[in-house]
Amino acid sequence: MATFRLTLEYDGTDFEGWQSQPAGHRTVQGVLEESLTVLFGGRVASIGSGRTDAGVHAAGQVASFSVETDLDPHTICRALNARLPSDLAVLRVERAADDFYALRGARAKCYRYGIWNGPDRSPLRVRRFHWERRPLDLEAMRRAARDLLGQHDFASFQATGSDVDHSVRTLARIELSGEAEGELFLEVEGDGFLRHMVRNIAGTLLEVGLGSRPAESMKELLAACDRSKAGATAPACGLILVWVSYCEDEGG
Amino acid sequence: MATFRLTLEYDGTDFEGWQSQPAGHRTVQGVLEESLTVLFGGRVASIGSGRTDAGVHAAGQVASFSVETDLDPHTICRALNARLPSDLAVLRVERAADDFYALRGARAKCYRYGIWNGPDRSPLRVRRFHWERRPLDLEAMRRAARDLLGQHDFASFQATGSDVDHSVRTLARIELSGEAEGELFLEVEGDGFLRHMVRNIAGTLLEVGLGSRPAESMKELLAACDRSKAGATAPACGLILVWVSYCEDEGG
Repeated sequence: MATFRLTLEYDGTDFEGWQSQPAGHRTVQGVLEESLTVLFGGRVASIGSGRTDAGVHAAGQVASFSVETDLDPHTICRALNARLPSDLAVLRVERAADDFYALRGARAKCYRYGIWNGPDRSPLRVRRFHWERRPLDLEAMRRAARDLLGQHDFASFQATGSDVDHSVRTLARIELSGEAEGELFLEVEGDGFLRHMVRNIAGTLLEVGLGSRPAESMKELLAACDRSKAGATAPACGLILVWVSYCEDEGG
Repeated sequence: MATFRLTLEYDGTDFEGWQSQPAGHRTVQGVLEESLTVLFGGRVASIGSGRTDAGVHAAGQVASFSVETDLDPHTICRALNARLPSDLAVLRVERAADDFYALRGARAKCYRYGIWNGPDRSPLRVRRFHWERRPLDLEAMRRAARDLLGQHDFASFQATGSDVDHSVRTLARIELSGEAEGELFLEVEGDGFLRHMVRNIAGTLLEVGLGSRPAESMKELLAACDRSKAGATAPACGLILVWVSYCEDEGG
């Protein structure tokens, strides 16, 4: 058996998320496994670094699979891409250690959340940005974001109904770039993310930007460990999984 | 009768171009006029600053229409946007002079052509960029572009079958920004454009970038006034109409 690591890019708009579902539901994993199965002539299961929700995009999702094959990574990459639809591509295929399993061992992930802060609905941005037409106080949002840096229990930012054990995570970076009345990007890098965590952080920071929540309230919010105290979950369309790195990666 | 000027943004991917067509064909003008007709309770004809082809986008297309109404521009804008689909929006509605007619009097237009010059097919760019995976000599493309600046007969860059009278146009600006292995943008500003002119310029400059056509051959190509001497028409998906300005606009 040979184990391979895939790096994937997808536009999540027309997928019902990463995770395979029963027939009739179009998911990234489902479409990928169809191509793997055709290529290798038998069912091949794939593992993602984590699920992305319906509508969430990826520029560098990582997946793994193991199969009996003599094909080299470059040939596998070309053969898969020849079958995949225009909204899903394999950027890279690499031979991995036999025990590589994309769901485990991810050392860090980076997500970006896009906000279109302009007066008009924008058809050219609708697939990739959440639209907030009201003016945003970016400085207040940046002050609030700084208080989320580092190691905290992020239970307040975890989707309701999730297991709240082990909700301590470390954010190594959280930055809001751009200018008011324009394209804003919230970029977040950490050792792991709870379900909806980035979208809940984005939704909460938007409330700070709109003046309906004090910039100084983040410490208290973290301490509460109560999802109901944080802001609304920002829409999926703005979110993109930028990259995933593993312990085995040098430097990255 | 009151005459109005509209500024429109659209993602052209799922439209069969600007121009109305028989039922069953989804065009920008057709979808816009459906909304106008519902809003004003009777058929309202619109005029565009020019046609955009199937798949071509716009960030600032201009259209006009005349109608008997007491509604103010702001109300018209909101009412239209409430009905328009996610890939078409009205950015602005203004009251115009009675003789304003978007097809005439455009003083200048700006188009941008996007090229994704990376090794991999990119699902996140597929709707907005033409993909060229081979390395491009950007300096050669820039040298060639400079020879297209100014007033010339652009018959060599006009779609076959077009009327070749009046094919003299003036390019006030032509710039290629970006770096090899990345997103490239060819931005072109002029007093008017022939059918397929920007896409034919983009296709010809791509041949220069790939080394299959000398950077120094543009003057000869212009002088030939022969479409068969220029490069292939670059795909529609890369093209976006950025803005249109009119004689009546102050400053431009």
